[in-house]
Amino acid sequence: MKRRDFLKASALATASAAFPLGLRKAAAQSDQTYFMVTFVSGIDYWKDCFRGMQDAAEFLGVNVEYTGTPENDITAEVRVFDEVASQNPAGILVTVINPDAFIEPINNAIGAGIPVVCFDADSPMSQRYSFVGTGNYYAGVVAARYLGPLVGEGKVGISSVTAQLNHVQRRQGFIDTLAAEFPSVTTSDDLIIDDQNNSTTAAEKMSALLIAEPDIKGIFATDALGAVGVGQAVREAGLSGQVPIIGFDYDEGTLDLIDSGELSATLAQGTWQMGFWGMMMIYAVRNGLIKSVSDWQAAGISPLPPNVDTGVVVITADNSQYWRAS
Amino acid sequence: MKRRDFLKASALATASAAFPLGLRKAAAQSDQTYFMVTFVSGIDYWKDCFRGMQDAAEFLGVNVEYTGTPENDITAEVRVFDEVASQNPAGILVTVINPDAFIEPINNAIGAGIPVVCFDADSPMSQRYSFVGTGNYYAGVVAARYLGPLVGEGKVGISSVTAQLNHVQRRQGFIDTLAAEFPSVTTSDDLIIDDQNNSTTAAEKMSALLIAEPDIKGIFATDALGAVGVGQAVREAGLSGQVPIIGFDYDEGTLDLIDSGELSATLAQGTWQMGFWGMMMIYAVRNGLIKSVSDWQAAGISPLPPNVDTGVVVITADNSQYWRAS
Repeated sequence: MKRRDFLKASALATASAAFPLGLRKAAAQSDQTYFMVTFVSGIDYWKDCFRGMQDAAEFLGVNVEYTGTPENDITAEVRVFDEVASQNPAGILVTVINPDAFIEPINNAIGAGIPVVCFDADSPMSQRYSFVGTGNYYAGVVAARYLGPLVGEGKVGISSVTAQLNHVQRRQGFIDTLAAEFPSVTTSDDLIIDDQNNSTTAAEKMSALLIAEPDIKGIFATDALGAVGVGQAVREAGLSGQVPIIGFDYDEGTLDLIDSGELSATLAQGTWQMGFWGMMMIYAVRNGLIKSVSDWQAAGISPLPPNVDTGVVVITADNSQYWRAS
Repeated sequence: MKRRDFLKASALATASAAFPLGLRKAAAQSDQTYFMVTFVSGIDYWKDCFRGMQDAAEFLGVNVEYTGTPENDITAEVRVFDEVASQNPAGILVTVINPDAFIEPINNAIGAGIPVVCFDADSPMSQRYSFVGTGNYYAGVVAARYLGPLVGEGKVGISSVTAQLNHVQRRQGFIDTLAAEFPSVTTSDDLIIDDQNNSTTAAEKMSALLIAEPDIKGIFATDALGAVGVGQAVREAGLSGQVPIIGFDYDEGTLDLIDSGELSATLAQGTWQMGFWGMMMIYAVRNGLIKSVSDWQAAGISPLPPNVDTGVVVITADNSQYWRAS
């Protein structure tokens, strides 16, 4: 397969030409094409990221293409990235399947003058100009500020992937914020279960914990499948509606559980924001808008903010309809 | 003084109409005026922030005005902010002298439909849509990645304002990163001095520390005046050039010390970036570019990323000329 055909075949969509807001385009730079590169490229999560990139591209008057590898495969995603970079695109947004495997590919692209920004999953030791994604510590802060007032006083449990860094950070933000802002709401190591991102494991372990610790007044599940299992355990213990549960991420099934009251809330990541602000940033570099140190290449510095926390928002039964697929 | 005159009198500058890059303006929305509000409004630090806001405004085709209170006075800054908000501007970037004093003024402005983003100093418990400023923990990471390889092996000292939160965070990022990435470079509580953001105090305490701990191989000063005092102490100990020092912030004097070798480096905050990206964000809200959840007001969520870390860059003798006033 020729390179051009390969890119075309893997492109899911391109930005539409119409600009719906009655605003004029920033520039008629329709010769500029920016790429988004992903792994497991078929999932809805990335489509929402790409929608943000498309919206920014419409405003800026440039073209965008979505590509990636359908597999969960390091070598395959590196190959797609290298193919895209070899086309000398105007810029690349990439979410990396593995941080270290992407250091050299990203540095090569940067060295060739292509602005590269990571979104959702970072390669922090590469020379990428920025990372745009969820600040996991702050996501835990948001969870505590939701659950703390609901619980008021008492113990709370946590269902999590205990060893994985993003989950460690979510727990830490949650625990620190409870201690600082809701000191009557407490947790401890023996109230944390390792759900291994598996709903069956979460249900089994949380059922056991609710027997051992019947005083639990609320639960934070740091992963989507954990939340589903925790909801099941609480329902089976006859505690639905009495033990509020806040989860992480969402799909139609999670939204159903929220509307039925089995889950109180979940945290939606800022996927659209990742694509939108990532696109604004690579455009700003490509088109010379960054003038902080206008000769930033000679000065040896990165031209962009190193980290944009796109945040999480709390989905409850009050606003769940806004996240339903339309 | 009438309200309009007050605003005019305190405005230092407005965006120039010319657009220098040969790009067309995003929209002829010259009726939109955005404000920057500061305290101690005369300092160069804010001028660089406003330059970023002006550059974004030029690209977007809107007007900006700089205002603030010359004093370091909470009531005075709140009054200026309320005056600006009462004009119903297109949006406000504000750096707050006190987080709690600004909760109500900011929430009132948000309630009146005015997009508000905090820059440099945040009011985190207000409803501001975002904070754009230095991530202090990450700034400490950058300091460790600079100093770690220079020291290679041995003890390092820290000069800091020990109780102030942003300095605590800078130290923690530095200490965690040394432990994780440069385990042969160590520090400890008895190698930290409290310089109280005063160069004389820093010089005296660091002189004493260098006598008590002659094995110190490098120093991180988390504030600008601390760095100046540490440089003096190291010079007086006859160790210039042997004990690398990395400071924080800069002025012409700091740049002179870097060029003479008394300081190895300092960290420049992303002031221009704060104004540029802050302006892009309030514009995006005002003009309906944020479509993640298009009806975000009904959904009860913030439309912007909650936190943009504008980063720090390492200034050394190799690139110091780019930070000199031109």
